[in-house]
Amino acid sequence: MTKIEIGSKLVYQVNAPTVFLLKIAAATTSRQSISDESLRVEPDVDVEQCQIGMEGNRLHRIIVEPCELTIAYEAIAKLTPEVDRPRDVGESKAAQMPPEVLTYMNPSRYCESDMLARFAFEEFGELRPGFDRVQAICDWVYEHLDYTPGSTVVTTTASDVLLQRTGVCRDYAHLAISLCRGIGIPSRYVSGYAVDLQPPDYHGFMEAFLDGQWYLFDPTRLASTLGLVRIGVGRDAADVAFSTLTGSATLSDKKVWAKLSDGGQASQKNPAVSTA
Amino acid sequence: MTKIEIGSKLVYQVNAPTVFLLKIAAATTSRQSISDESLRVEPDVDVEQCQIGMEGNRLHRIIVEPCELTIAYEAIAKLTPEVDRPRDVGESKAAQMPPEVLTYMNPSRYCESDMLARFAFEEFGELRPGFDRVQAICDWVYEHLDYTPGSTVVTTTASDVLLQRTGVCRDYAHLAISLCRGIGIPSRYVSGYAVDLQPPDYHGFMEAFLDGQWYLFDPTRLASTLGLVRIGVGRDAADVAFSTLTGSATLSDKKVWAKLSDGGQASQKNPAVSTA
Amino acid sequence: MTKIEIGSKLVYQVNAPTVFLLKIAAATTSRQSISDESLRVEPDVDVEQCQIGMEGNRLHRIIVEPCELTIAYEAIAKLTPEVDRPRDVGESKAAQMPPEVLTYMNPSRYCESDMLARFAFEEFGELRPGFDRVQAICDWVYEHLDYTPGSTVVTTTASDVLLQRTGVCRDYAHLAISLCRGIGIPSRYVSGYAVDLQPPDYHGFMEAFLDGQWYLFDPTRLASTLGLVRIGVGRDAADVAFSTLTGSATLSDKKVWAKLSDGGQASQKNPAVSTA
Amino acid sequence: MTKIEIGSKLVYQVNAPTVFLLKIAAATTSRQSISDESLRVEPDVDVEQCQIGMEGNRLHRIIVEPCELTIAYEAIAKLTPEVDRPRDVGESKAAQMPPEVLTYMNPSRYCESDMLARFAFEEFGELRPGFDRVQAICDWVYEHLDYTPGSTVVTTTASDVLLQRTGVCRDYAHLAISLCRGIGIPSRYVSGYAVDLQPPDYHGFMEAFLDGQWYLFDPTRLASTLGLVRIGVGRDAADVAFSTLTGSATLSDKKVWAKLSDGGQASQKNPAVSTA
Repeated sequence: MTKIEIGSKLVYQVNAPTVFLLKIAAATTSRQSISDESLRVEPDVDVEQCQIGMEGNRLHRIIVEPCELTIAYEAIAKLTPEVDRPRDVGESKAAQMPPEVLTYMNPSRYCESDMLARFAFEEFGELRPGFDRVQAICDWVYEHLDYTPGSTVVTTTASDVLLQRTGVCRDYAHLAISLCRGIGIPSRYVSGYAVDLQPPDYHGFMEAFLDGQWYLFDPTRLASTLGLVRIGVGRDAADVAFSTLTGSATLSDKKVWAKLSDGGQASQKNPAVSTA
Repeated sequence: MTKIEIGSKLVYQVNAPTVFLLKIAAATTSRQSISDESLRVEPDVDVEQCQIGMEGNRLHRIIVEPCELTIAYEAIAKLTPEVDRPRDVGESKAAQMPPEVLTYMNPSRYCESDMLARFAFEEFGELRPGFDRVQAICDWVYEHLDYTPGSTVVTTTASDVLLQRTGVCRDYAHLAISLCRGIGIPSRYVSGYAVDLQPPDYHGFMEAFLDGQWYLFDPTRLASTLGLVRIGVGRDAADVAFSTLTGSATLSDKKVWAKLSDGGQASQKNPAVSTA
Repeated sequence: MTKIEIGSKLVYQVNAPTVFLLKIAAATTSRQSISDESLRVEPDVDVEQCQIGMEGNRLHRIIVEPCELTIAYEAIAKLTPEVDRPRDVGESKAAQMPPEVLTYMNPSRYCESDMLARFAFEEFGELRPGFDRVQAICDWVYEHLDYTPGSTVVTTTASDVLLQRTGVCRDYAHLAISLCRGIGIPSRYVSGYAVDLQPPDYHGFMEAFLDGQWYLFDPTRLASTLGLVRIGVGRDAADVAFSTLTGSATLSDKKVWAKLSDGGQASQKNPAVSTA
Repeated sequence: MTKIEIGSKLVYQVNAPTVFLLKIAAATTSRQSISDESLRVEPDVDVEQCQIGMEGNRLHRIIVEPCELTIAYEAIAKLTPEVDRPRDVGESKAAQMPPEVLTYMNPSRYCESDMLARFAFEEFGELRPGFDRVQAICDWVYEHLDYTPGSTVVTTTASDVLLQRTGVCRDYAHLAISLCRGIGIPSRYVSGYAVDLQPPDYHGFMEAFLDGQWYLFDPTRLASTLGLVRIGVGRDAADVAFSTLTGSATLSDKKVWAKLSDGGQASQKNPAVSTA
């Protein structure tokens, strides 16, 4: 079991009555449990918590009048991942795919797998099916992109990234997801906290559905998959923005952290890790 | 209550072992019930039926060896829609929106509401909130597009359509959905059968979430919303393709029909209709 | 006659041997003459001057070793524009269009007039042909876009701008050019100096070919067309970047100015002005 | 010297008064001369011939009333190409590039070399400069695309083609041109006749500027560069459409042919050929 202290603090200047939808709280799955959790909001307003969809995504909704708003979240995440040898993890067959994962084979806003399918097949179609094939996709993405903050915008898609060859974590994930879907592997976006991420921020990575479960991958290589704490999953970043607001507010400060409780280090090796 | 006889017949030339995912069976909702249903497949293979997601979408999966495959579906749909006066139907507030509809405010593959939000606000932001505002969006789409079969392809998006000003039913729906989301109204794609549609085919239309429930709209004006039988809903057409196949097969014939059981006609007026 | 003092000063940190192509010197046309011109480069390197194409565009090419490079340009431009009453200026017929302007009816990198033709016809196709129709296009662009520095990047096209509704001078010009070409009016991009432009910078505007000559328009309304000094023309901004470099250098300072010699003010009215 | 008989016959149903701009007549260059040329138009209308731009492009303009219009072009082209050994042909340096070719380094409508520059550098930046590097680009294009008539439309660009991996001759040329410009090699589109092209049609190919002159390449491998007769050159296909019309007419028949006069065969080897 890995214990990870996570947290984030957001400060907004709210200029008009505003509805915030926050996706910053860690999810609960059979392999990720949360304890010592607190969500403090200043000024003191009602916080509505809800769960969306089937994947355990959590949402906090708050409605605030003009003010300086501080949102502070803290928790301890305990991970008991299944860790497999990559070579033992194969792919699921189309004929046996559980219905609830089929939606993650469809193209989505930032992952135009329909456009990239030929490219994906050409580059990765001949590789041996399994975890290693998804790893090969992530390696390709890592090797062909430059990690360049500021090089992409909120509407940048996987196709854009494939052409321009630069991006940040969400772009890396979008491209890897699109290539997986392009060769018929269900794949989805995961937002979360990552141990010792530099620079500290929320992180975006991905999961591929292999051998009946979801395995984690981080094509940026910025974090070990053993040190990833999930907030939410979605088809792409559109579904798990840490904050969506209706009204008028400006983010004036953001701090995000995640560290191993015992002061240790998440291993940097590359096992097949599943925490879904 | 409206009784509608629906059906479709698909013939495929299957050239290799192929997995078919079919989305052709009508959904069951509190306001749409299905009876006298049959799905016949020749040659006789196992048909796996499943339900996906929370919206009642149904899926049939079949696995076939090379052959001529015939899929024949028939049913009677009974609709007991809620029919309201448009002027009585307002919009839901962001602060009260049920969590499960929030996902339909996100941009999706063919509905880039993030890119079109400014346009949507400029054109429709000042109109009085409610059913009539969504109707105004659908009217705008109807008036500015030409219905031109063959003018779009499977990767065509709402942005493309807004620029090129031509499309078919799915394109009309995608653009209307994007404009709704752009001004903050949850909106989703609906595939289905439409009474007396000319030329006969599966139809694509849309729903907007207003006053706590989903209301139907058909921006093509090809069918009355009182004569629409729902197959499935999704973020856009990517989620409800009538057939997705892994393998190799060619569609060689397609027949689709929907007619009022009592030989009557669905009214062509424009009430606010909800069947979700 | 209008006399305008123009100039610009560029400072580059050159990190490797670099070839600079500069398009900062004012053009000579039958209605724009240049005097008191100087181009000083420090350190002292050879400056090759050439003329490109048929439109009088000038180019300075310099090759420099690593250094701090200063390029200072100054001149006095004398404008003797033809100034007509807008209502007197009609459109040229396709059958009589001079061959050399036909190229400015083709779509170009940032002006996808092929994609925007339907939109252009729908909005402006019914208006009375002539100067006022082009003015109506420029007014539409002015009214529907927000001038927002930083909202676009170097690859942003007219289609992007039409959807996102923000941009800077080059984006305004690209959209207006595309809409003109879309309804069959030859149109081209002009880079230049603009009297009293705020904030001071090189400016981008456009010309439309009407009644046998090129008329100036500035859809940003940031400058009077009587105070525009032309550097060069092209199909779009791709052709007249003020500096293109092969090698490695960073722009560390840029100053641009243009002011009426006699201290007067270019009229802010809207006559039909031609200086080509 | 190679002698090639070329010709084409177009039949249009003209429904309204229409202006035709035709680019079907072969160009004259220092290495391509034209004889026995005829352009017959039925019904008998005035044909205006003009030359556009600096590259010898020819244009025929005709204005016709509603009728069945037949345009028949025939000529004999004599080619005296410079034929070099590929290994002897290097690249021109940015510092010595003649000004008139610089425009062919800019991105254009269908050749977004600005977007593809990183990709081009990554794939081809390390190769030895010269003819063989352009050949490597053409080989890459040939190997990664499928020649699929109908897979692209008139607005398809090089970026689209790079992602979807299918196209026809103009798409092959656009992608190769974009990649050349992306690594700093001036490149342009050439329309023309190709000996024994199957199926017979006008052809689209490209030229790259190397060692002080333009060399021909055909990335489709459908024709020998020794059997290419140039009609016109441009930045991309937008500049050299065989027919542009203002009015209303439908192409009802098209025949195009090109064959070696002496019944021989253009060699299928791959020398460095220049006919500009």
